Amino acid sequence: MNFKDNFSYFKNNTKEIYFDSAATSIKLDKVIEAQSKYDLEIGANTHNNLFDNAYKANQMLLETRKKVADFIGANNPEEIIFTSGTTHSLNQLAFGMRSYLKKGDEILLTKMEHSSNLLPWMVLSEEEELKIDYLDLDENFLIDLSKLKYKVNEKTKVVSFAMNSNTTAGLNDVKQIVKDIKTINKDIIVILDLAQSIAHNEINVIDLDVDCIAFSTHKLYGPFGLGVMWAKKEILKWLKPIFYGGGNNTSINVENYKLAPIPDKFEAGTLNLSAIYAFNVCLDIINEFKMQNLITYEKELKKYFRSKLNEIEESKFEFYNIENDQPIVLFNLKNVNSQDFGAFLNKKYNISVRVGKHCARLATDLFKISSTIRASFSIYNTKEDIDKFIEALKDCDSWINEII
Amino acid sequence: MNFKDNFSYFKNNTKEIYFDSAATSIKLDKVIEAQSKYDLEIGANTHNNLFDNAYKANQMLLETRKKVADFIGANNPEEIIFTSGTTHSLNQLAFGMRSYLKKGDEILLTKMEHSSNLLPWMVLSEEEELKIDYLDLDENFLIDLSKLKYKVNEKTKVVSFAMNSNTTAGLNDVKQIVKDIKTINKDIIVILDLAQSIAHNEINVIDLDVDCIAFSTHKLYGPFGLGVMWAKKEILKWLKPIFYGGGNNTSINVENYKLAPIPDKFEAGTLNLSAIYAFNVCLDIINEFKMQNLITYEKELKKYFRSKLNEIEESKFEFYNIENDQPIVLFNLKNVNSQDFGAFLNKKYNISVRVGKHCARLATDLFKISSTIRASFSIYNTKEDIDKFIEALKDCDSWINEII
Repeated sequence: MNFKDNFSYFKNNTKEIYFDSAATSIKLDKVIEAQSKYDLEIGANTHNNLFDNAYKANQMLLETRKKVADFIGANNPEEIIFTSGTTHSLNQLAFGMRSYLKKGDEILLTKMEHSSNLLPWMVLSEEEELKIDYLDLDENFLIDLSKLKYKVNEKTKVVSFAMNSNTTAGLNDVKQIVKDIKTINKDIIVILDLAQSIAHNEINVIDLDVDCIAFSTHKLYGPFGLGVMWAKKEILKWLKPIFYGGGNNTSINVENYKLAPIPDKFEAGTLNLSAIYAFNVCLDIINEFKMQNLITYEKELKKYFRSKLNEIEESKFEFYNIENDQPIVLFNLKNVNSQDFGAFLNKKYNISVRVGKHCARLATDLFKISSTIRASFSIYNTKEDIDKFIEALKDCDSWINEII
Repeated sequence: MNFKDNFSYFKNNTKEIYFDSAATSIKLDKVIEAQSKYDLEIGANTHNNLFDNAYKANQMLLETRKKVADFIGANNPEEIIFTSGTTHSLNQLAFGMRSYLKKGDEILLTKMEHSSNLLPWMVLSEEEELKIDYLDLDENFLIDLSKLKYKVNEKTKVVSFAMNSNTTAGLNDVKQIVKDIKTINKDIIVILDLAQSIAHNEINVIDLDVDCIAFSTHKLYGPFGLGVMWAKKEILKWLKPIFYGGGNNTSINVENYKLAPIPDKFEAGTLNLSAIYAFNVCLDIINEFKMQNLITYEKELKKYFRSKLNEIEESKFEFYNIENDQPIVLFNLKNVNSQDFGAFLNKKYNISVRVGKHCARLATDLFKISSTIRASFSIYNTKEDIDKFIEALKDCDSWINEII
């Protein structure tokens, strides 16, 4: 299947080899069209059924909630909360627990987490005197199951981690991790950051037995400005909103107020309706492609890249995650500033990569390097793109001619 | 000038008379096209200048910040914070002041405020033991300048109010109000909710001498899912973010972290980039139309409506804001449920209105009615639309035939 034909972006950027999908994916044509269509045909805001397009807006919202629930294997569409992105979702989860968490309670994270799964907890811990600790990792920077018991205990209230890191892309064995955590302490709330996973794995929240998840649609060929937070209904009942406003209350008096039931309680203000409509269409297309086909395709690209490594002088490079089958190559050219080599890839080969700490600021301490080059593949990349990438890596010594 | 030609929505909804612009405006064709264009041509995420489209993304962000600053008369583009909407902006302002405000501090609001300018303060006051009071209003539900001195005092820390109410649309004399407030206590922070004002007034934050503002782009012919928060730099320096994550920090260690300078400090996570690009184009068009022409056009519509009132049996109706020149008609048909008459307007005349409390839950106590019909006009409405509206009001007694 040629997935690339579904992305006209590449007709406008014919020479570019886009390897920055871990930052944001290119959007499906039908997603882009749908987002326009909402504005051109429906247009209306929700919370009103009085006129035809307002009714359509409400129905669209309900339908999309159901479709998202099905996509992640959730039972109840009311548990799907639309946010502005993963960052919003994770901040809502952390700060929504402000009154649930008490002084001395323990939060477990990993040092591989993205800033958005580190900082909200660090700030909350500072304010509420909680204790943060980090799960032990194995040599592949994955959560070490054999060492869970040294950190998880009766004081642990929350364990929050990413299924895949946004640097190495390493895939944690979520199901087993959750099982082991809950064997030690069944009351622990497990939060799964799916920002880097939603486009590369089939997700079933019930099967994984996690309690909350967060992801953004713009990393799944969908629109900017939209995220999903899912949590079990029991949690959503006591979780406090971080946004208050139109639609999230049922009464306000001078003395008191009453919050709306879920999901409205968490969706104050006008939602990003054109994006929700576009994401609805996005899920249809992904379901049509079949998630498993997308995953297989991406794994093939990584495998193909590995098979070509013998063509380059491997010893000149440091590869950090070459063995895992997730569609990211994290690397450096030895003794060369990663920014410089990244610029070379762009200038001479039109290869778009990202360079730096990738917002995983504790992870770079683990790697003992301050900056890496991240080439992240997706379904619109091809074997030809990989060939070009290999060609560029072969040509690595010319970097200096391009930069000066 | 025929503004309507710039909105293809009406080619897809030829019969509809859209009078729900106070909930969301119809989007300009060029805004819709620009949002697609970003995804089709640029696509990239920000925070990286390594490849061509990422560079374009960053430049676009800087340019839009500058354009927004110019639009509201702010001196410093760094004071422009992109949010997901007015609700996000107002919650950021309120909860960002959590550690600034101390037990017993006073917050002044009005009973005309939208939920998003009531609830965040009510929740914060509950948590931090602040005191909320409401400014006195005159007979037109506007802030009564002569009574400011009874509420504003040395304990007042924040005064937050809407320039225009989202029900009566009444226009407060912001400049004089702020002057009088600051004469009593120059340290008071004045927050102006512009959700209902940004499309109907020329705004100059320096001239008004306010300290913070909030608005959404979707009420200004712009995209969904984007808002603006502006505050003076001195305030942004100590205001705490409510979102933490990628891009809002410059370092994270296990022991501590350092937040990024403004504006990045408040913009954690991936921004709604296609919407920001679309809003950039939106401001170009508004500047081309000239804001003053849009205002004049809307005032003409309201005036025309008033001039036609003699054609209907006015005594059958209750009009709540007929005298002000803002483009909203708030009314009821006497002794008829507003929901029923709203449905009649839609079914028989294709007139789309909103009915209810309009999220201004304390205001309905002032009006002594639980629900009103709100017909809100915009630049794409015409005198023909008003004629049809008048025709429907003349025909008011037939409502019962349509509903049963």
